[in-house]
Amino acid sequence: MTIPSTMKALLLQNDGYAKVPSGTVLEAMAPYVEEGTIEVPSPKGSEVLIKVALASINPSDVMFIKGMYGQPRALGRPAGFEGVGEVVAAGPDAEGLIGKRIAFATGLTNWGSWAEYAVAEAAACIPLLDTVRDEDAAAMIVNPLTAIAMFGLVKDEGEKAFILTAGASQLCKLIIGVAKDEGYRPIAIVRRDDQIALLEGMGAAHVLNAEAPDFKQKLAEVLKVEKPRILLDAVTGPLAGAIFSAMGKRARWIVYGRLDAVQTVIPEPGQMIFMHKKIEGFWLTEWMRSVGPERRAAAAIEAQKRFSDGRWATDVTAIVPLEEAVLRVSEELAKPNGKVFIKP
Amino acid sequence: MTIPSTMKALLLQNDGYAKVPSGTVLEAMAPYVEEGTIEVPSPKGSEVLIKVALASINPSDVMFIKGMYGQPRALGRPAGFEGVGEVVAAGPDAEGLIGKRIAFATGLTNWGSWAEYAVAEAAACIPLLDTVRDEDAAAMIVNPLTAIAMFGLVKDEGEKAFILTAGASQLCKLIIGVAKDEGYRPIAIVRRDDQIALLEGMGAAHVLNAEAPDFKQKLAEVLKVEKPRILLDAVTGPLAGAIFSAMGKRARWIVYGRLDAVQTVIPEPGQMIFMHKKIEGFWLTEWMRSVGPERRAAAAIEAQKRFSDGRWATDVTAIVPLEEAVLRVSEELAKPNGKVFIKP
Repeated sequence: MTIPSTMKALLLQNDGYAKVPSGTVLEAMAPYVEEGTIEVPSPKGSEVLIKVALASINPSDVMFIKGMYGQPRALGRPAGFEGVGEVVAAGPDAEGLIGKRIAFATGLTNWGSWAEYAVAEAAACIPLLDTVRDEDAAAMIVNPLTAIAMFGLVKDEGEKAFILTAGASQLCKLIIGVAKDEGYRPIAIVRRDDQIALLEGMGAAHVLNAEAPDFKQKLAEVLKVEKPRILLDAVTGPLAGAIFSAMGKRARWIVYGRLDAVQTVIPEPGQMIFMHKKIEGFWLTEWMRSVGPERRAAAAIEAQKRFSDGRWATDVTAIVPLEEAVLRVSEELAKPNGKVFIKP
Repeated sequence: MTIPSTMKALLLQNDGYAKVPSGTVLEAMAPYVEEGTIEVPSPKGSEVLIKVALASINPSDVMFIKGMYGQPRALGRPAGFEGVGEVVAAGPDAEGLIGKRIAFATGLTNWGSWAEYAVAEAAACIPLLDTVRDEDAAAMIVNPLTAIAMFGLVKDEGEKAFILTAGASQLCKLIIGVAKDEGYRPIAIVRRDDQIALLEGMGAAHVLNAEAPDFKQKLAEVLKVEKPRILLDAVTGPLAGAIFSAMGKRARWIVYGRLDAVQTVIPEPGQMIFMHKKIEGFWLTEWMRSVGPERRAAAAIEAQKRFSDGRWATDVTAIVPLEEAVLRVSEELAKPNGKVFIKP
């Protein structure tokens, strides 16, 4: 395959972090990324070059391009944390992947997937079964592997019940599905009543609307009965603080996302002392680095099986051609309950 | 020994927690404790009855009687978390302690030491060497054992440098002494310049005044060189949050006290995710329960040796007779750098 010298990509328009925090909604792509043409990069060492078939847009991408994800931006580089495609070139330590169809994540290379070609570390590539659709493969790592890895934390802790904020996110839907299959009891926190029946149907033991006037009382009732120890939290801010504060002894607040720009207060620091509560974080990149290739491969196989046999399926809101992305993406993202993809 | 049926004690005047938080200074004893006469309690099970020789006043006592310690008060009960005295009666499972001079803590019984007689669990009693003074023994558990236990966390973590807030407290002085002897590098955070030379003399590698205009810059310089992972924090609030935020990867914020009534914010929750930082708590009662009798006994021996040979010594501000305590204690506590005791 002939690799061109330049390519189209959606390029970051800022360096570093946002000076002023903004909301989690992407009002428009234009201030953060613009379409442009840059050189196709050359893979080195254990990197591979991928011809991107489809790239996904996750909430973490939105936070990242806005400068609020806790990782610095690099002006002029392509955005996009994951995608699917074919390996067309490789550094000397990753040649075995050439010609393979893979899902990939770009967290280790800082060279994004919203482009005709992307660069990824071999350790962040998953060779795919033919039975996995592009739409599932393009969103295979950031959400599905995180779901399997974080559900592993719940299993290690031992309590059947656990709490999820942003309960209607794609990620939480995946976790709820796995948890239900293994007899666990997810407690999903949402912001709209119309998400309640949907998530209960998927296997959530309880779904609570944080905007409801009786939320705190209902939460207290559920906590009393279910005694969850783990809070898997994608929102931080006052909601997460209030849930953590209401939880019982030995509660663990595991932060994996930051959707609330409001400051995060520890409501009762004394609980850290007298109730042995803990606050920690989860980052898939660190998990993949720390668990080793076997557990990583097992999670990748588990995810592919679930997508292949239909237990998991990615809801697709839209597949937007790269050249239309700057204009259309924010509008597509505003539609609920599905995922938006970019097709180079 | 004949045990009387009633005794004098300093009795809690409130139930539960403070409705409105107040400062850490004890403006007066009277609104929180009053002298009174109550029945001498009967020890049950593994409890002992102690004729109190001397009881100490710790910052945690002040926070407790004010209702801000995270443990509920019981109206009409004696206050006081620790003391020294002779065991004069015991429940059937603790008779071996009768006649012994012991240091004791009351966290498990909720029946305080600021009284002629106190009740303690056998597991919270330390039989004393004759070489340990009453002034050291009365303040042997809450501070010295905490010092040894928390320094153990530092040793387990492996980094030589660590940070202490409230660096001029009795507790921190004890930790600094042990750490120096074992070649560790304490970084003490204080609020007054006159504490700097004192703590450097005791073995602190760095002493930083949090009130100095260049504090943040000096802190950054020290963190860059020393790379501490552990923050032993007795203050919470904005100061502790700022230190934690400035620390590097894998920092652990270990809260063991709460001296700042201002709310505690996690300045950058994204650091929990991308820098693997953690927030946890330390409570001696939980430590004693969880480490088992051997490690507990080793810590008790270590503390007594240090007091016996003079490596540790409790600075005494005043020994106040119980009947003068309500009037005099707040004034004595206002004097810096020493401990105040109550003598029944």
